[in-house]
Amino acid sequence: MTTGEEVLSGQIADGNATWLSRFLTDQGLEVSRRYTIGDRLPELVEQLCTRARSADVIIVNGGLGPTDDDFSAQAAAHALNEDLVLFPEWVQQLNSKFAQQGRTVSERQLKQARLPKSAQILDNPRGTACGFVVQIHRAWVYFTPGPPFELHKMMREQIMPHLAEHLGGPRAAFVKKITTFGIGEARINDLTAALRVPTGVRVGYRATFPYTEVKLMGAGEEAEQQAEAFLPELRAAFGDNVVFEGNASLELRLQDEMIKHGFTLATAESCTGGMIASRIVDNSGSSAWFHRGYVTYTNAAKHDMLGVPNALFDSVGAVSTEVAAAMAAGAVKHGKVSHALAVSGIAGPGGGTETKPVGTVAFGLASPEQLVSMLLQLPNWGREKIRILSATIALDMLRRSLEGVSLEPTSKFLKVVSFQTDKL
Amino acid sequence: MTTGEEVLSGQIADGNATWLSRFLTDQGLEVSRRYTIGDRLPELVEQLCTRARSADVIIVNGGLGPTDDDFSAQAAAHALNEDLVLFPEWVQQLNSKFAQQGRTVSERQLKQARLPKSAQILDNPRGTACGFVVQIHRAWVYFTPGPPFELHKMMREQIMPHLAEHLGGPRAAFVKKITTFGIGEARINDLTAALRVPTGVRVGYRATFPYTEVKLMGAGEEAEQQAEAFLPELRAAFGDNVVFEGNASLELRLQDEMIKHGFTLATAESCTGGMIASRIVDNSGSSAWFHRGYVTYTNAAKHDMLGVPNALFDSVGAVSTEVAAAMAAGAVKHGKVSHALAVSGIAGPGGGTETKPVGTVAFGLASPEQLVSMLLQLPNWGREKIRILSATIALDMLRRSLEGVSLEPTSKFLKVVSFQTDKL
Repeated sequence: MTTGEEVLSGQIADGNATWLSRFLTDQGLEVSRRYTIGDRLPELVEQLCTRARSADVIIVNGGLGPTDDDFSAQAAAHALNEDLVLFPEWVQQLNSKFAQQGRTVSERQLKQARLPKSAQILDNPRGTACGFVVQIHRAWVYFTPGPPFELHKMMREQIMPHLAEHLGGPRAAFVKKITTFGIGEARINDLTAALRVPTGVRVGYRATFPYTEVKLMGAGEEAEQQAEAFLPELRAAFGDNVVFEGNASLELRLQDEMIKHGFTLATAESCTGGMIASRIVDNSGSSAWFHRGYVTYTNAAKHDMLGVPNALFDSVGAVSTEVAAAMAAGAVKHGKVSHALAVSGIAGPGGGTETKPVGTVAFGLASPEQLVSMLLQLPNWGREKIRILSATIALDMLRRSLEGVSLEPTSKFLKVVSFQTDKL
Repeated sequence: MTTGEEVLSGQIADGNATWLSRFLTDQGLEVSRRYTIGDRLPELVEQLCTRARSADVIIVNGGLGPTDDDFSAQAAAHALNEDLVLFPEWVQQLNSKFAQQGRTVSERQLKQARLPKSAQILDNPRGTACGFVVQIHRAWVYFTPGPPFELHKMMREQIMPHLAEHLGGPRAAFVKKITTFGIGEARINDLTAALRVPTGVRVGYRATFPYTEVKLMGAGEEAEQQAEAFLPELRAAFGDNVVFEGNASLELRLQDEMIKHGFTLATAESCTGGMIASRIVDNSGSSAWFHRGYVTYTNAAKHDMLGVPNALFDSVGAVSTEVAAAMAAGAVKHGKVSHALAVSGIAGPGGGTETKPVGTVAFGLASPEQLVSMLLQLPNWGREKIRILSATIALDMLRRSLEGVSLEPTSKFLKVVSFQTDKL
């Protein structure tokens, strides 16, 4: 149960609900329903009383803070028909937390130490609002703080042990995930439907832009072994469209491969504007293979920083295989690296022409063996998606190059205008 | 009501629920509850039958696709006690959509044209699954496709007009938003509580990392005028911590200011690794002021690309005011721009030392007037947050410089290790 007008009115995404669902599923606990209710005391009380008659466990998120619209503790007290009382144990924590920052606890902050009488405190080392657990009807009801950073720690360190103690450990559920790029959900479904999925193993699909994931799910050791044995067959069905497995990422996979071979990378980005570099740097350890990036948003920058001949901008334009190839070649040379990726495109909404509409993007890859460049027509799904898709296509070019498979896209969403391979 | 195991198990965020909530709220329609249920036919049927007795409108999202786990149409048919029938109108649409791509409609795809008998088709020009509307008990129930791009168009062009026709237009609701950076939720609450908020206007808070938003909400013309009159007072209470208002962004605000003054920018990024550049390039029109970015992840790159003296790396280290200042100065010079932002820090989890723990980040800003550099100690909230916070602090330095207010952070979460201002 997540609470908050800001969630219900869509002002913020319900990221905690997503995280909680995934976390509990990964622990083998089945989430049967999710509710979102606003900051309305009677509704929260009603839902608590109703759901506590059928659920084993309810996790309530949010509404523990010091502000006027936080009243989860009050709702719990109503549902329990108890009073709110000041818990000296948490007052002391508040005092010491505030003292560390040289501040004193205000009356408003003290509200966070007022809990229903029968509550048991759940420590929150990362925040000033403690969590708490109460028993309402048949359910254990856990009240958790809104900030994700606090919630995660509390779930792992306080709530899971408490659950295991009071409900017994759940049986181990498993999820095995294959992430693909360049094939759609319907095609994935068809490819999978042609295979014999072991009984006890469920198959799920999920389009998570720009990828499509396939998952094998189930519970128990036997089913997990069967899923494991089935994986190679599934993998083979998707061929070179598999970009990574499990909870890795395309970037992490590249990191492993590049480091293994002692390769190094520079990026040269125009319309993606640093997104490729940033996605790589998002992973710790990236400095071992990613050395530098050139964000060459203007033609002058492409010329100054990468040595792209100015004549090309007039003759073939900045969005061309020639310029992308020159950017990649320049980045390898000036960056003193083994590999370079280059992207130059029209992300829109303006800038499109009849021959090069919005979504026209040129890619370049320089490697020790070759210089590959291609001009693609991406669907005009808007600036943000064009940029994300472009960054992913570029990173996937590098993956394909490292794997020694074809670099030419076959996705039915991408139109290949031209594709070229040269010696560097 | 959003459906799908992948949502309930947390494998994907319920972005459509968020979008729908916000969209409907913005149209003055109150969302009273949100449900998420898995791909379980009986549960969906039960919820439909139950909720259709109390709600005016239900929007069901997802489960219209061609794959085996899509059965929203079947659930509707059950709830209505009707058969699923093939709608020739949509078969024809499918045929023409597929013909355009040179493909033929498979039996699997045809499933998308099977709807409950009393259904009325809602066109989906962006996809192959049509939406539909049926009346169950007192409620109009709209079935919408999962892909956001399809959902949005259908809501705007099909469902809102249908709703207005059958339920009458809602009264205009308003939301006025002020976004702040550098002050926490409790402090914001205190500052606001000291003001006299007009009756009929509600105040809401929302921490959306790394910002805190304050919103004035209500419905009707009179309340909106009162909110409008109250805004300057609210704005004044937050002083120079206001980074933007309404649905703008810090980046868009900078874009307006920089273009107005004819200023241009280059970025020099180490730990943020292109994130600042990418956040700027995310906005169309950014080429008018953002010229280039240097992603200098290694010391060699900082030296080669920006002219940072190699001696500095040994004497004061890459994460220092000296190096940040040299990066900014180098970016202004080599980039031939009026302004430059530089960031060099330790995002972790590795790389921290006793004197420079994870979260130590150096910032530089070069402007026509001055060269500002500072070394901050950010809280160690993990690599991703350190990077996002660093990028935002850098962009906010530029905002503060353009506004002529102090550049030294006062947030209680940031420790200022050193702060320096020099002539360029």
